[in-house]
Amino acid sequence: MKILIVNAGSSSLKYQLVDMDNETLIAKGGVERIGLEGANLKQKDAEGNVNAKFEQPIENHVVACDLMIKALLDSKVIASMDEIGAVGHRVLHGGEEFTASCIITEEVKAAIRKYIPLGPLHNPANLMGIEACEKVMPTTPQVAVFDTAFHQTMPPKAFMYGVPYEFYKEMGVRRYGFHGTSHRYVSKRVCEFLNIDPVGKKIIVCHLGNGSSLSAVVDGKCVDTSMGLTPLEGLLMGTRCGSCDPAVVQFIANNKNMTPDEVLNLMNKKSGLLGIAGEGTSDMRDIDALADGGHERAALARDMLYYQIKKLIGSYIAAMNGVDVICFTAGIGENGPELREAVMSEFEWLGVKIDKDVNNCKGKEVVISTPDSKVTVCVIPTNEEIMIARDTKELVEAAK
Amino acid sequence: MKILIVNAGSSSLKYQLVDMDNETLIAKGGVERIGLEGANLKQKDAEGNVNAKFEQPIENHVVACDLMIKALLDSKVIASMDEIGAVGHRVLHGGEEFTASCIITEEVKAAIRKYIPLGPLHNPANLMGIEACEKVMPTTPQVAVFDTAFHQTMPPKAFMYGVPYEFYKEMGVRRYGFHGTSHRYVSKRVCEFLNIDPVGKKIIVCHLGNGSSLSAVVDGKCVDTSMGLTPLEGLLMGTRCGSCDPAVVQFIANNKNMTPDEVLNLMNKKSGLLGIAGEGTSDMRDIDALADGGHERAALARDMLYYQIKKLIGSYIAAMNGVDVICFTAGIGENGPELREAVMSEFEWLGVKIDKDVNNCKGKEVVISTPDSKVTVCVIPTNEEIMIARDTKELVEAAK
Repeated sequence: MKILIVNAGSSSLKYQLVDMDNETLIAKGGVERIGLEGANLKQKDAEGNVNAKFEQPIENHVVACDLMIKALLDSKVIASMDEIGAVGHRVLHGGEEFTASCIITEEVKAAIRKYIPLGPLHNPANLMGIEACEKVMPTTPQVAVFDTAFHQTMPPKAFMYGVPYEFYKEMGVRRYGFHGTSHRYVSKRVCEFLNIDPVGKKIIVCHLGNGSSLSAVVDGKCVDTSMGLTPLEGLLMGTRCGSCDPAVVQFIANNKNMTPDEVLNLMNKKSGLLGIAGEGTSDMRDIDALADGGHERAALARDMLYYQIKKLIGSYIAAMNGVDVICFTAGIGENGPELREAVMSEFEWLGVKIDKDVNNCKGKEVVISTPDSKVTVCVIPTNEEIMIARDTKELVEAAK
Repeated sequence: MKILIVNAGSSSLKYQLVDMDNETLIAKGGVERIGLEGANLKQKDAEGNVNAKFEQPIENHVVACDLMIKALLDSKVIASMDEIGAVGHRVLHGGEEFTASCIITEEVKAAIRKYIPLGPLHNPANLMGIEACEKVMPTTPQVAVFDTAFHQTMPPKAFMYGVPYEFYKEMGVRRYGFHGTSHRYVSKRVCEFLNIDPVGKKIIVCHLGNGSSLSAVVDGKCVDTSMGLTPLEGLLMGTRCGSCDPAVVQFIANNKNMTPDEVLNLMNKKSGLLGIAGEGTSDMRDIDALADGGHERAALARDMLYYQIKKLIGSYIAAMNGVDVICFTAGIGENGPELREAVMSEFEWLGVKIDKDVNNCKGKEVVISTPDSKVTVCVIPTNEEIMIARDTKELVEAAK
């Protein structure tokens, strides 16, 4: 079965076509600047060669979907749309309703809509992607894979906030966590890679990218994660401030005469590495280059990030009463040997030893700790797409 | 020298008279319900026997101060007001201006006033206490001891939030930390008690009371603490929610049509143990009794608190690259053997071993870990008053 994986943003639509008979990528493309000037589609084959390219007005997600199908057909990746067995959609927020992926129905769409307040940037875009695919491929089954689902196994002591209990019951105020598909993939994959049984194991997954989150996984189940009600909480990120005193919201609102929405917009889009370094970049590579060149605020931003990762790892070790494996993944985690070394070298107290030579690599599955390290430290490149494709295949086949 | 220690709240004024020649308590009193019906003063001698009591209208803090002096004279604790060599005031927020205690001048009062936005509940009351004492004892030197001062040694990576850097420079948005006098006392006292040199030692102080905070102390200096811009951040407390996704403020504001001030008021006064358990009590003893009796939400509140303490200890161990001593102090910390055992028993991974029999005590200095425990765990009753008195004496003598 060939499965199309769709990740729709507000003005973008990324897709991959995967042959699930052997889990291989057939084609990978992206539509950018939907509804904007300079809209385009670019598609590559499995080897990375461009096999389709369009530059034309793309008014909305339905047009983007049409163009995606045209690209897949024109490039002869598929001979007919019927070859696409199912579509798997990445959806940000499933609230407490979705503890796993599911086939999309009207009810599922209503639930995704219901959770727009919790995922105001992503859920509306995800819905647009779903509805566009439904329009273009009306008979193809669609599956939703939620970023929040993996974290639904957290116990109440980990997911509850200290605000009045009624706010949880009435409005769903709690920690949900995000990047769940990545945390699920990496925590599972690292056990295969190390040839260990997830049962009985305590694993910390450090998903460090433009958005960053950590998760604590026991027996293959998430017991805690750092993102919260929204993807704002936790670590310092590219443009997000991460955790801070909730009173900071009030303080900025009152001092700058801003609404809470304005403050949160600033906390999501103008903060983090971007806001601390103040050089117009949220890219860790730029921050590294600036810091290495003596830029004080870039160095501060990097120090803050390293320090916060270290503290969060420590808190999850305590939460789990120990740790067996620590994994780094996602853009910064996979490609940042400096970060990995800087963070893990300060876990001497735990008996962690990093092999600096082995660690000096990017984007591959590798054990970076020494054989005598008390904790196994790994790099596992994430693959959310394969998880989405697997879930989609499984659900569609089970529904037949 | 006899020193009067004053802790002024919005409708209360607690005081102690201490003989600093031998650091002994002479008398201890409190004025309650200032400006309210049922106002009263009660004073006890060093043995705890009531030696002065007034029930009468007490319009304001100046009247309360007058009454305090009257109580001290009437009870013959002092023969003349001149015996009071100096007054030491507990002040909540000193911003970045005060890294230590100082003699109160007009400039100091202006600074305390400046930081009212950061300590809106306490700084105005502290100022009222100072000005009342100045009026009643115009020639007696007054000293301010700040709750924030001890934490001023934190490095930027620990005190900076991820919001735009300008907010720190322009408005002072950063972590300040509170309970500094307690953290300073306990981190110092535990070294005397254990007969160890603070230099080279890594200490975690768990100040757990109606307000709670942890600090990480290296070489006798604070390197991190859990309270932030305001005393709201960090652990679940009696009525405070502690840390949560900053987006929770926006979410509640928008859903309940509340202003940020209203949301923060709710987070400070209606949340925490009170808000989770929902039984009208923020007292840990009530929460324990309810939880032990099968009350699910009280049990949840307790679970959350224990879990959060555990995680925070873990994060500070990671922050310091190890830990030598963990201290429990303040109401819950000193008097909660169950909490201490529950939290510390889950640090087996670190080699922590608690002697359950020794731990089964309240309010005394004691090592509760076993001799073969890898970390020394202690109970050290806090004594903020003695720190205030010592600072006051030192400053006043140096100024002579």
